[in-house]
Amino acid sequence: MEKRVKKIFDNITKKPDVILIKNSAMPFIDDNFFYVTGLTHGIFEGSFAVLFPDGKIELVVPQLEEESAKKTNANINVFRNQKDLNNILKNLFSSYENIGLNFKGISLRDFLKIKNMFSNFDFFDISDSIEKTRLVKDEIELKFIREACRIVDIVAEKIPQIVNDGMYEYQLAAEIVYLMQKNGADKSAFETISSFGKNSAEPHYTHGNIKLKKGDFVLCDFGACFKKYNSDITRTFIFDKSSEMQKEMYKVVLEAHKIGFNTIKSGIKASEVHNAVLSYIQGTKFKDRFIHSTGHSLGISVHDSSARFSSNSDIIMEENMVFTVEPGVYIPGLGGVRIEDDVLVKGDGAEFLTNSSRDLIEI
Amino acid sequence: MEKRVKKIFDNITKKPDVILIKNSAMPFIDDNFFYVTGLTHGIFEGSFAVLFPDGKIELVVPQLEEESAKKTNANINVFRNQKDLNNILKNLFSSYENIGLNFKGISLRDFLKIKNMFSNFDFFDISDSIEKTRLVKDEIELKFIREACRIVDIVAEKIPQIVNDGMYEYQLAAEIVYLMQKNGADKSAFETISSFGKNSAEPHYTHGNIKLKKGDFVLCDFGACFKKYNSDITRTFIFDKSSEMQKEMYKVVLEAHKIGFNTIKSGIKASEVHNAVLSYIQGTKFKDRFIHSTGHSLGISVHDSSARFSSNSDIIMEENMVFTVEPGVYIPGLGGVRIEDDVLVKGDGAEFLTNSSRDLIEI
Repeated sequence: MEKRVKKIFDNITKKPDVILIKNSAMPFIDDNFFYVTGLTHGIFEGSFAVLFPDGKIELVVPQLEEESAKKTNANINVFRNQKDLNNILKNLFSSYENIGLNFKGISLRDFLKIKNMFSNFDFFDISDSIEKTRLVKDEIELKFIREACRIVDIVAEKIPQIVNDGMYEYQLAAEIVYLMQKNGADKSAFETISSFGKNSAEPHYTHGNIKLKKGDFVLCDFGACFKKYNSDITRTFIFDKSSEMQKEMYKVVLEAHKIGFNTIKSGIKASEVHNAVLSYIQGTKFKDRFIHSTGHSLGISVHDSSARFSSNSDIIMEENMVFTVEPGVYIPGLGGVRIEDDVLVKGDGAEFLTNSSRDLIEI
Repeated sequence: MEKRVKKIFDNITKKPDVILIKNSAMPFIDDNFFYVTGLTHGIFEGSFAVLFPDGKIELVVPQLEEESAKKTNANINVFRNQKDLNNILKNLFSSYENIGLNFKGISLRDFLKIKNMFSNFDFFDISDSIEKTRLVKDEIELKFIREACRIVDIVAEKIPQIVNDGMYEYQLAAEIVYLMQKNGADKSAFETISSFGKNSAEPHYTHGNIKLKKGDFVLCDFGACFKKYNSDITRTFIFDKSSEMQKEMYKVVLEAHKIGFNTIKSGIKASEVHNAVLSYIQGTKFKDRFIHSTGHSLGISVHDSSARFSSNSDIIMEENMVFTVEPGVYIPGLGGVRIEDDVLVKGDGAEFLTNSSRDLIEI
């Protein structure tokens, strides 16, 4: 992954001698550890990756991770205790003066420890450069994302056959995750959302002990994780017959989704995508019912960098960025509709990476 | 959850006026947000919990989380943009001078933002107090952990019926996760490990495209997450007939597991548990083949606090702590055996929370 490391250095104005990526304990694992090493599995708690401007990497890992670390071609340093670790780090950094750190991915406590160990060093925040680098996906990343998208498409197409009267939300969630893993997902990208009826009005409700009944929305938001890379899709169905209001909500969200997709191309601002979607919804009877951003960058993290399709985002779209497009309309007490797809930015438009049916389906 | 908040303040020597818990973007979500609010679902990215010495909590959440936040009895403040957020925080903190922060759960970048906003304030690291408080579980926590343990026991008992000749590792992982969710788990506590043959020698290998063959170890390490609380169990089986070497490895690990369990009681040091287990294994032919700690605290995080059964841990066991006991023996190229259970510390001993069979099972 020399290219990725070099690109990170290239994207920094005031260049540090080395960059240190540090994993803490779960959940505080910096995804960049996997980005720079190309490791596709494992956790690597308490591990370090030291990056050099020529693209080389030194890994510093506890004994527990020694076998797993051998799957990268980085140089591996194994520590058995804190003293070992200190010696290895001091050795690696002996001829340097300043260290780049991912300020967004390191805990304050870990930073203070490192600062204490290298009190004469300067520390630079290189998190913006890492985010910028990661926004544009390379070939291997796109291969993994496409595979994660292929898996959720298969599952999305099968949901209408799985859903049945009296089913509980948690049962549908179980079936979705099972199908993803049977089709090759390493795990769920995030906790599967499978919300029925009025619960679908809460964008981050997941699933519970609620039984499906006629007239319910069935909102499924799920993602597959494949070799650390994620997909993220939402489909909203209606159980049995839809009401006029439900049809209207669906129609508006689907149109908003089209508008979003059609706006995306290399060179435009991320905010333009959101504003196009938002201003359309604001002109309908569902004014003020779209309460989140239109999408987010997707990759080795589900929310890959802080880049969003939101009104205050000044990110410029570039070829090979991957974003979700996910407008929604939510009416507390009644329910919500969200349609979400993963999209690859191209020079003159965009390509859907997820392609399962977006038609209104009455199950 | 007033009691939990009061206990956190009680465990701090130099008391701050307020404590601020801040979630960043996934995966940097501070579990303490859920510990103090008692919220059992949701993500709450970018949300804040402000804790007061009398046990009261003010939540500061983006609009997206408003509905979900209503499930707590904390006071809710909703922000629509950065300006809103700044005003709410400035208002909440107007009459205070020092803020306690979880240095282990806040990113350096978030800390610098907050410090910039409240430049006259003193910031204290209260992460040790939070860890200390969370180590001892209350009644609600134990109820959720027991449920998470009940689920993995059901699944562990079923694994021998699921495993079949030529099965892939990822298929077994899919079945395990499916069974957990069908039996009430909200999600997997962590990526399920289902490793066959020599892969079982890597403690953090998860699962891949490897086919089961006769004579393989089948190591399954999995956990259920129920209302944010986790269980964590490992069972190692042998497919078809075990060799003498495999039998011997299993026998040693099972004996080590018994020694670990029997050592645990209120009042002893965590290091004593590890040392008892380690010194037993070091006296067998599997000397130096036990390469991790004997266990970790378990709760709302899978690795709940940094407390471990390890040689350098000076934590004193107390009633109602919950730990895993998980000795293992690993031989690269051949495979590994690990037996893991969740254990509740009692005054005069310990209680197994997971109880599925620990006998050597040839599938």
